[in-house]
Amino acid sequence: MKFGGTSMAGTERIRRVANLVRSQAAGRDGEPNEVAVVVSAMAGETDRLVNFCREANPLYDPAEYDVVVASGEQVTSGLLALTLQSLGCSARSWLGWQLPVKTVGAHAKSRVETIDAPGMLDALGRGEIAVIPGFQGVSDEGRVTTMGRGGSDTSAVAVAAAVGADRCDIYTDVDGVYTTDPRIVAKARKLKAVTYEEMLELASVGAKVLQTRSVGLAMKEGVRIQVLSSFIGDDAPPADELPGTLIVSDEEMDELVEKGLMERQLVTGIAHDKNEAKVILTRVPDTPGAVANIFEPLAEASINVDMIIQNVGRDKGETDVTFTVPQADLARAQALLEDRRGEIGFNRIITDSKIAKISVVGVGMKSHAGVASTMFRALSERGINIQAISTSEIKVSVMIDEDETELAVRVLHTAYGLDAD
Amino acid sequence: MKFGGTSMAGTERIRRVANLVRSQAAGRDGEPNEVAVVVSAMAGETDRLVNFCREANPLYDPAEYDVVVASGEQVTSGLLALTLQSLGCSARSWLGWQLPVKTVGAHAKSRVETIDAPGMLDALGRGEIAVIPGFQGVSDEGRVTTMGRGGSDTSAVAVAAAVGADRCDIYTDVDGVYTTDPRIVAKARKLKAVTYEEMLELASVGAKVLQTRSVGLAMKEGVRIQVLSSFIGDDAPPADELPGTLIVSDEEMDELVEKGLMERQLVTGIAHDKNEAKVILTRVPDTPGAVANIFEPLAEASINVDMIIQNVGRDKGETDVTFTVPQADLARAQALLEDRRGEIGFNRIITDSKIAKISVVGVGMKSHAGVASTMFRALSERGINIQAISTSEIKVSVMIDEDETELAVRVLHTAYGLDAD
Repeated sequence: MKFGGTSMAGTERIRRVANLVRSQAAGRDGEPNEVAVVVSAMAGETDRLVNFCREANPLYDPAEYDVVVASGEQVTSGLLALTLQSLGCSARSWLGWQLPVKTVGAHAKSRVETIDAPGMLDALGRGEIAVIPGFQGVSDEGRVTTMGRGGSDTSAVAVAAAVGADRCDIYTDVDGVYTTDPRIVAKARKLKAVTYEEMLELASVGAKVLQTRSVGLAMKEGVRIQVLSSFIGDDAPPADELPGTLIVSDEEMDELVEKGLMERQLVTGIAHDKNEAKVILTRVPDTPGAVANIFEPLAEASINVDMIIQNVGRDKGETDVTFTVPQADLARAQALLEDRRGEIGFNRIITDSKIAKISVVGVGMKSHAGVASTMFRALSERGINIQAISTSEIKVSVMIDEDETELAVRVLHTAYGLDAD
Repeated sequence: MKFGGTSMAGTERIRRVANLVRSQAAGRDGEPNEVAVVVSAMAGETDRLVNFCREANPLYDPAEYDVVVASGEQVTSGLLALTLQSLGCSARSWLGWQLPVKTVGAHAKSRVETIDAPGMLDALGRGEIAVIPGFQGVSDEGRVTTMGRGGSDTSAVAVAAAVGADRCDIYTDVDGVYTTDPRIVAKARKLKAVTYEEMLELASVGAKVLQTRSVGLAMKEGVRIQVLSSFIGDDAPPADELPGTLIVSDEEMDELVEKGLMERQLVTGIAHDKNEAKVILTRVPDTPGAVANIFEPLAEASINVDMIIQNVGRDKGETDVTFTVPQADLARAQALLEDRRGEIGFNRIITDSKIAKISVVGVGMKSHAGVASTMFRALSERGINIQAISTSEIKVSVMIDEDETELAVRVLHTAYGLDAD
């Protein structure tokens, strides 16, 4: 079970979390569950600690930053253990260095390497609830590390993998993964299950429910995730009845469909992303190596290029190259390209931040044609102009004018039959 | 160097501390010092964390309480390391489990057993400043421990012993140890030096500058302490010029006197304590074993009995027994004695909290008679009635009416020639 900062904000809310944990540990029909809980810091606390670090030293040493910010989760893990004890449960906290959660990579953005925790496994076997601060680990040098903001989801998946958990229940502000953003489409439906790949596409293009890295780790380790709401009443169904959204492998999804627990869907969801910007380089020489001259320096600068289209050249031997980069990297990308103007040999750089990327995602399209054409027809019938297209095995994305984002999402949600009754 | 919570309250104050540490590390005449710094949590932070624990579980598990409250010092140690780095110093934090500070005894009141810290010694040798959270350690089981409120002074002395420090500078709200409480006697003088034994007597009878346990540890380990103010301006003398009060062994005190750096004093200071209560048991049988019947149960209940006087009995074979206990333990002591009334065989229990203990302390009285008689004469000349007397090698204490406390302190301060010019 994993709880975020909103669920841990104060001793009142921690008591509600403790009740959920106790009921999960008690199980049903006299069959108790072994439960490990991963917790975030109290909402606002990590910001407070980060601000202290900035005040102390604007160019802060990430190793000492980690010492300071990891304390937030240390506090909530101790408090949840105390609260569980007050409810009559046996419980203890296991800090990152105690388990240990061994990490690799730079401070403040380290990654879990191994969790080899015989002590905790023994304790779980004795019926003791393990409470683990998310976001933190320990380096080879024995120093405190953290995994970057949002790292608690990844901690939870790593712990679930380490203990061979049946399921990793991630309690969030939402009650599951939806076919699209319910703030845009009132008829959006909660999905009973999605595959890891679908979730990665939905998450990376805007459906911010889980940290992307945690889904990748779950896929690699085969951890079944359930996303569900931490704001449920006392009459809510227990987590074992799967009230949220399961995130599973393709194989398990096939089993769920065979058992009739899920309908086979061509398209699982519609995602949108307004955080990209379009870059057009005009009159690039149409020679081998010209495109490499553009994208190699961007890759070296860790600027993530997404859609790429090479337009038919207006003049012989020349072409326009269009691509997208994150808006946050736009200025840097522009400067880099200007520096290499001679080498690349383009005429003008045209940029546009007023674009959106709309993606249709579904593992079902692996085996079905026609998904893309449905998308193009539906959009063109409403007069929405498609500026660029990119596709993957389970996704079709188009670039459109930002102002048409919500309209396009609604049109596609209906076109693929996703609207709730 | 050790800094308390007031000095660490916020990044502004931490910057002032960092400046003091940097200047100490830089040393003088191109001779840098190796510096380890022990820090408390920000003022108020430990209270905040303790309250969280109480809210989570009024009967809290001390092991989890330790996990929560130790985080306060973790934050300030990281922040001080960051601030030192911003001033151009090489610095890092060493948490209790990293050094490690191995402790024994119960959680929330553990005691330092060993600090074997080759890693920190190497770092000090390389000119890196070590920043150590006070108050925390690690148990044999690898769990976080704390040493009880005020434990940071003890941490500092233990670290100083472990690194073989030349001196342990404890920065406090006061600028040293005085001949008596300056709020009572305006002419109180700051002492250049006191011996460990004197400091223990002065601390335990009311001059609350250092945690008593830290002085005991310093005496055992031969750590030279300097108490000095953390609220000094930029023009204050460096700590090496000893602007505060040194706490040293008898031998070093003798050396200081021989070198003419200190005057030999018969009496070093006057302490007072209003936190005791008087208990009189009337008509106790004057037989061997009767007194043991009184004090054994109190000792078993960890009630600290201080002055004891056995009055001459009014009737043959009976006697009145008077003693003092801490006011906080008075009710418990009374209940214990009532329970054993038959066994002890007393007539009445009379109690009085309106008493004070005034103590004259000085290592010089070991070799000089007449100290006690000076005290009795000075008090009787001002009409102050002495209710009981107790003495040790370096202390004479009297019990008087609480209302006469300040008068008695002033009279004695003058009588022993301690008044500043």
